[in-house]
Formats: sequence, structure tokens, C-alpha cells
Amino acid sequence: MTIITLLTDFGTADGYVAEMKGVLYSAVPGATVVDLSHEIPPQDVELARLSVARYWQRFPAGTIHLVVIDPAVGSLRAGLVVGSQGRFLVGPDNGALSPALLMPGARVFRLGVPPHAAPTFHGRDVFAPAAAALALAQPLDSLGTAFAEPTILRTPEPVREPDGALRGKVIAVDRFGNAVTNLVGAPAGIVEVGQHTIAVRRNYAEAGTGELLGVIGSSGLLEIARRDGNAAATLGIERGAEVRWRADA
Amino acid sequence: MTIITLLTDFGTADGYVAEMKGVLYSAVPGATVVDLSHEIPPQDVELARLSVARYWQRFPAGTIHLVVIDPAVGSLRAGLVVGSQGRFLVGPDNGALSPALLMPGARVFRLGVPPHAAPTFHGRDVFAPAAAALALAQPLDSLGTAFAEPTILRTPEPVREPDGALRGKVIAVDRFGNAVTNLVGAPAGIVEVGQHTIAVRRNYAEAGTGELLGVIGSSGLLEIARRDGNAAATLGIERGAEVRWRADA
Amino acid sequence: MTIITLLTDFGTADGYVAEMKGVLYSAVPGATVVDLSHEIPPQDVELARLSVARYWQRFPAGTIHLVVIDPAVGSLRAGLVVGSQGRFLVGPDNGALSPALLMPGARVFRLGVPPHAAPTFHGRDVFAPAAAALALAQPLDSLGTAFAEPTILRTPEPVREPDGALRGKVIAVDRFGNAVTNLVGAPAGIVEVGQHTIAVRRNYAEAGTGELLGVIGSSGLLEIARRDGNAAATLGIERGAEVRWRADA
Repeated sequence: MTIITLLTDFGTADGYVAEMKGVLYSAVPGATVVDLSHEIPPQDVELARLSVARYWQRFPAGTIHLVVIDPAVGSLRAGLVVGSQGRFLVGPDNGALSPALLMPGARVFRLGVPPHAAPTFHGRDVFAPAAAALALAQPLDSLGTAFAEPTILRTPEPVREPDGALRGKVIAVDRFGNAVTNLVGAPAGIVEVGQHTIAVRRNYAEAGTGELLGVIGSSGLLEIARRDGNAAATLGIERGAEVRWRADA
Repeated sequence: MTIITLLTDFGTADGYVAEMKGVLYSAVPGATVVDLSHEIPPQDVELARLSVARYWQRFPAGTIHLVVIDPAVGSLRAGLVVGSQGRFLVGPDNGALSPALLMPGARVFRLGVPPHAAPTFHGRDVFAPAAAALALAQPLDSLGTAFAEPTILRTPEPVREPDGALRGKVIAVDRFGNAVTNLVGAPAGIVEVGQHTIAVRRNYAEAGTGELLGVIGSSGLLEIARRDGNAAATLGIERGAEVRWRADA
Repeated sequence: MTIITLLTDFGTADGYVAEMKGVLYSAVPGATVVDLSHEIPPQDVELARLSVARYWQRFPAGTIHLVVIDPAVGSLRAGLVVGSQGRFLVGPDNGALSPALLMPGARVFRLGVPPHAAPTFHGRDVFAPAAAALALAQPLDSLGTAFAEPTILRTPEPVREPDGALRGKVIAVDRFGNAVTNLVGAPAGIVEVGQHTIAVRRNYAEAGTGELLGVIGSSGLLEIARRDGNAAATLGIERGAEVRWRADA
């Protein structure tokens, strides 16, 4: 039973996701089609990349991940199929697939575009059919031509200052208002953002109700949170805000 | 493995969709229940109809489409089961099922309402059980009585002007701010909306960043889009806005 | 084919739900994982409890319900597995599981927290693995230690006045603006809220378009609705608003 996951920025009200699912189930009647999200903000390739980084290897080998955030649909941007670490990924070449592309041994092929494909909806006419072909055990290299230079996006590296402090930034704000940074660290020290100086704790419970804290989030990155509240709203910060971590004084 | 799809305006937070799924899985343990959307705007039968038009025939023969947008629940409006083109559709008689009803050979039956059915939730007590019965291979005509005059809604026809121009309207605005019109056409010419005169392109990529364009969307209808932006917000237009297409001057 | 349902307040854009699904499918490749909602408002345990009350017994025996609304993650609050009425429930000890805990014969065990578990994401590292273990037929009592005093939340009881009237409150407002109360009743009489005196009808159709009405909702509770409109917005009421029901004068 092949698993095909879906990540898009389509929402569901307009019927686009429904069409893609129709294509998948028609081609692969026994497929297990798994919604991951259709609520990626429109055209937010960067948030898609961070989401893919979280989940793509959590699924079993053989899983096919469809990732269709496609602001450049209909242009000359390539459509890709990728094999990496036993999983497959399918989607436009815009960097969202970087977590898989950066692994050793990743194989990348450029999909052809059939003449009937709607220039505004490759999700339905190019990528879903490619995922279906993989689910039907068609070999990766039969689906396209080798593609040497896929777009790679990376989380920016933090800068280490002479005194050992780290300077970085907020790379995402989640639904709870937690501000995820690019700082990898231990659950200790101080994080500074704007005028605020915030202690890093081991978990939320070490902070009092409504208190701001730093905490190492579930993918190992330093987050700024507010116990029982919304840190990003409280601090007035968004993606891109500068942060600085230092050891306790 | 029978596929049962779900389209509703229930959202998911209140538990109504969860109850319907419980009914379906209890009656048909091996069912493949597929979410299409629960985010149809409340009581927006027209948007549901457009969504159904997109997906209902994309699924394989035998699929059962539950479509429960039901502003008149508890009234005398009929509940329907429909067989059309090898697919089944189940839902209230309000026009959302029109794309299937308009096909030659469509068969329509009116469901009975069991005495225990909650007058506010036929999705759970009438329509989900009917879908389950179809999944268990009960014949369509055993589920209700023949129903001669189901409600039909149609996309309004554009008007052709003496000079060959077409006058129509925006029938939907999608999540990306693309304004879908009722004009069927070729990727050429000019579309006018309000004070704006917009060139029709073959795809988004032919427009510059931020530029407005017309484009033939993935269901064959002319759309007004903005490259890397939101056309409807830019133009201040909504569903119902008047548009006009003409050949290049 | 084991059913595992998911109720969370995670939204889907951040990838947390995707990670949980990866854990589930990796451990139980043939699982039927069913989304119930990821749109519970952040940390709204009370709304989760009301939703669980609606659905948990609608699913077939053997179903495993994951319910992860977890404002106290990383604190000393317990993580629970519950067996009740042939179903299983897994989630933090905060009252959301009360509908199952209150049934006679409910069994409750406290999950251990593996050392590698992220202190901010027990959904992925504690609860999803426990659900997977149950799906693999591990006995309930092998997953944790007996737990005597789980948190119980109850819908407040209405107060009966000397003249037979009932005084209660709004316990939820659904997506349609229906205000669900804690009053159990028959479809008759008058409901008072603020300055408004509203007739209770048998169904929406007995009210005129735009008219306010009381109606017995699909879980047997009195709701205040507005035909073809949003009652809560019209009345300016929210969860907690006081209501009073009395027989007709």
C-alpha cells in the first residue's frame, strides 16, 4: 500500500486539491493519500521547505511526497522527481525539496510537460500523474531526464561573535506564536530580541504563566515562546527578526 | 475498496465532520473516506457547485461523493441520491449536484428521513447513512423514491455582442485572488474589468512580476490573475463583477 | 484495519501534524489515519472536550482516538491512555478525554516519557508512539502505570428555578454562529438571552428568513440560531453568555 502525501498552498475550497486527489485515486485505486497541509500561505516556498524538512524522513521508505507550491507554474521552471533516502518527492524546482536534495545520493530528474497540461495547474496535470507513476512502480529515471542543478534553499547560518554569542534570525512563526530561530543550542543562556532579554528554559513549565522564554523546539532549534500566550504577537516580531543568543552573564 | 468523498461547509472544529466520519467507518469499516473540503464558506451552495464540477468525474467509477452544504436542513427540501456517469452523489437538493444531474442518463431518488434524524444535521443522520448504504452495494433505487425535478443551477452564459466581444462576469475568486469568469476562450485578446484593460496571455510567465493578465484557467475558463500577486484585491472585485472580452484592437 | 483518529490544535502549516502522521505510518504501515480536526483554537481544551463528546463513540470498537491539545506540554501533567467502551483514547491529562473517562469501566494509565522526547512536542514523541503501540495490539496496561485521578471537566449543569424555568449558558458557538447552550429540552417554549426573547422551534424552517430561533441541536442541547444568518454575531454573544429557558407564557 503506497503512501502519497500532499503538501500544497491551494486551500481546499476551490476544488484544486479535490482534482488532484481524483487523478491519484483514478490512477492508483488502492493508494493511501495523506493530507499534510493545504494551508501553506500562498506561494510561501520557504515555509513549505521548513515543513518538508520536518516530515519527509518521518514517513516509511517508499513514501511519495507531493509538494506543490508553485508560484512559477507555466514558466520554464522545471518540474522534478527526486529519489532520496528511499523516499520520493515530486514538485516544482523552487527549493521546497531542498531537504531531500541535500542528502548524499539524491537523484533528480526533470519531468516532461504533456501538451494537454493546463499552464496554470501542473499539480493536476504533471505532478499528480508523476506521483501516480511512481506509486505504480515506474522507475524514477523513466519519468524524466537527469537534472543537474536543482534550486537549493538553505536556512541561513547564524554568525558566531568573538565573545561566543550567536547572532541569527527568526525563520518561522508557528500557529501558537512561537518564533523559531536558526540558532541551534542548549537549553540555557539568554536570548535577546529587540529590547527584550529572555531566559532560555528547559521547557515551558519552567516559566510562569504569561512569561516569555527561550526553549529548544522539537527540531532542535531555539524558539522564543510565551507560556500560555503568543510570543510573536507580544514582541511584535515576524519572520526575519534578528535575535542574539549568549551564555548567562 | 469504495471511495467516499466529503465536501461540506462545516469546518472541522465543531465535531460535525468527525461525527459523519464515525457513522461512515462504523457502517463500512474498510471504506476509503477522502476529505475534499470542509472549508466551503457557510451555506455557499454556488461555490460548492463549482467545486463539484471540477472533481466529480475525476474520481474513478463507483466513487460516492457526499456533498453537504445544507442551509435548508430540516425544511421540506428533498435529500437526494444521484447516479451519473458511474459515480454516485448524495446531498440536499439545492443545486450543488447540478454538474452530475445535467449529464444524460442521470438517475435521481429522494431519500426518506428516518424519524430519529436530528432536524439540524441530516449530514450525520440521512446523508452519511445513504452513502454507507451505497458503499455496501445497496441499489440506488432501493434508497428512495424517484425524483423528477431536482434543483439545477447553471453558470450564467456570457452574452455575445454584435462586434464579437463577450460580456460576462466573475463567478468565483480563488485563494490566490484569481478571478474566474464565465468566459470560455482562447489565450488571446483583451479583457476589461472596471477601468482596467488587461491583455490575455498564454500563461503567468508571459506577464511581468506584479502585472495583471488574463489567462485560461485549468477548467477552460478565462481568469484574471496578477503575476506573483492577488488580482481580486488589486482590482477590488468580487464574485459577480462584470467583465468583457474582445479580440485585440 | 485499525483506525487512528487525530484531533489537535496544531493547524497544518507548520508540519507538526505531518510529523505525527509520519510516526504513525512508519510504525503501522496499514493504519487508517483519520483527520478529525487540526483547527481546534490554540489550547482550547474545552472545545476539544465538546468535540470528543460528539465523536468518540460514533467510531467502531477498536478505534484509537489521539487528542492532542496540550498547553502544559513539558510540565509534570500526565500523558494518558484510556480504554472505554471498546475504544482507546490517547492524550494529555487535561480534561479533553472526560467523555470517555466518565463512562463505567473506563481504564486509565499514565504513559512514561522516553528520555529522547522533545519537551515541547509529546504529540510526536509520546502520544503518537502510544497510539501506534495500541494499533499493534499492545495491551493497554503494558503502556503505562495505573492512574487514579485523571482530570475531569464537565459541562456545567443548568439551574432550575422555582417556576420551572432553566438558567444556563452558552457553551460553544459553532462555525455557523449557532450558540450551543447547556440546556436539554423539548422543542417548545421561549429562550431569553440579553434583552432578546426568542421562540423555540422544531427546526430552522419554522422560522422566517433572518429570524432568531431556539432549536434542539444534533446532540440534544438547546441552540440559539438565526435562519440563514449568524445568531451569535447578531446577538453579540460568546461562550459563557447567560441564557434562560421558560415554557410559553
